[in-house]
Amino acid sequence: MFAEIITVGDELLTGNTVDSNSAFIAKRLTERGYWVRRITTVGDDVKEIKAVIREALGRKPEVLVISGGLGPTHDDVTMLAVAEALERRLVLCEGCLERIKEFYRLLHEKGLIDDPELNEARKKMAYLPEGAEPLKNSEGAAPGAYIVHDGVKIFVLPGMPREMKAMLENEVLPRLGEKKFVQLKFLAEITDESKLAPLLREAIKRFKVRIHSSPKGFGRYIGVIIFAESEGEAEKATKFLNENGVSLQRWKL
Amino acid sequence: MFAEIITVGDELLTGNTVDSNSAFIAKRLTERGYWVRRITTVGDDVKEIKAVIREALGRKPEVLVISGGLGPTHDDVTMLAVAEALERRLVLCEGCLERIKEFYRLLHEKGLIDDPELNEARKKMAYLPEGAEPLKNSEGAAPGAYIVHDGVKIFVLPGMPREMKAMLENEVLPRLGEKKFVQLKFLAEITDESKLAPLLREAIKRFKVRIHSSPKGFGRYIGVIIFAESEGEAEKATKFLNENGVSLQRWKL
Repeated sequence: MFAEIITVGDELLTGNTVDSNSAFIAKRLTERGYWVRRITTVGDDVKEIKAVIREALGRKPEVLVISGGLGPTHDDVTMLAVAEALERRLVLCEGCLERIKEFYRLLHEKGLIDDPELNEARKKMAYLPEGAEPLKNSEGAAPGAYIVHDGVKIFVLPGMPREMKAMLENEVLPRLGEKKFVQLKFLAEITDESKLAPLLREAIKRFKVRIHSSPKGFGRYIGVIIFAESEGEAEKATKFLNENGVSLQRWKL
Repeated sequence: MFAEIITVGDELLTGNTVDSNSAFIAKRLTERGYWVRRITTVGDDVKEIKAVIREALGRKPEVLVISGGLGPTHDDVTMLAVAEALERRLVLCEGCLERIKEFYRLLHEKGLIDDPELNEARKKMAYLPEGAEPLKNSEGAAPGAYIVHDGVKIFVLPGMPREMKAMLENEVLPRLGEKKFVQLKFLAEITDESKLAPLLREAIKRFKVRIHSSPKGFGRYIGVIIFAESEGEAEKATKFLNENGVSLQRWKL
């Protein structure tokens, strides 16, 4: 089960914003048992977004999560790019339009905006690719979209972290089933990193686990993360490593 | 002048680490006048890394920066993947080997490691693609590499932020010339976001600037970043926007 993530936004490509969204999405997908194989970031440009979506679909992931570029401003063009990539029309989602109207009515009531009316920029957000299921945005105006296309589950989410996170938790994860992955994080105390590799490879062979290791500075410690489908399997691998002289200490997740 | 960035590491794909390296690299490249068109993240897998390098080279960027996977552990395979992608052999860099030896000698002297000798894992770091210029790592063991291939300037850097940053500043940027880009960041106070877009488009037409805007929450403010080749051109655009009713306030960079 592999997944891909695409994040969209000029601010990510200029380095003005660190892309923490993709890490958040990746973590949640990994916990559900998906292996995120690639993360791609592009700017607010229809052609570029369309190109990376087509490339990702060509690799046939089970899940493709796209985040960013759903707002009302002129450079929010992701939904248009999704529609073009899938060769679908953008069609008005009447229910979305009602929710957007209500959203701006409330902002106006709170005195945050002068005009509660739906101008073209705001109305634009109610257009989704034909056949898409709208995803509710509990924290903002722009709805997301869920589209199954050629067997790929495509989720289109906003880029504002608060909105993206709420939509991921409430609208995306429930559509991906219940399967959970266990992640155990350790610090391994070693004095020769070349002795660790063969033991990790042996553990991967013996148990149903994936293991990732990475040096933490240049001291005696290496970070080790064990991924498994069950707590039991992860613990068997941990026990095996401990018994073979790798001293593992639990580490904050 | 466009650039691409590739970051490598399983920890980025599992969401255990937020990829702040690519934002740092992107920011520095943008300041030098490069337009970063795409950032791609893949895991510690020779095939995957090789594939994304080939895809990036196919788009003919002027600069390609690759970061991560240069260390001594079994999953550090980036240099091998670079060599395979470019169809070059990995060859021993004698000078690099000497510096690595010295690096571990010093660690041993400080009591941080038990064994100062060069085992296979440590020696591996001294192999670079044939024809590569080694890049000095002032903060760690693994050297980077600079390779000009089919007109693309390829820089291969470590993934540890401290090492990557030092190598970028001291070894990469001096090889990219002196050109500087100006970035001015503002908050624009507006009450109707649809009125801002035509003014931004007009400013882009009139002056030698690129402008990026993004909403900050749902209040009266929109973040506006003006990119220009000179301070003067950026200020002309700012003046134009101010005179046309967009109230811009400088904002921390």
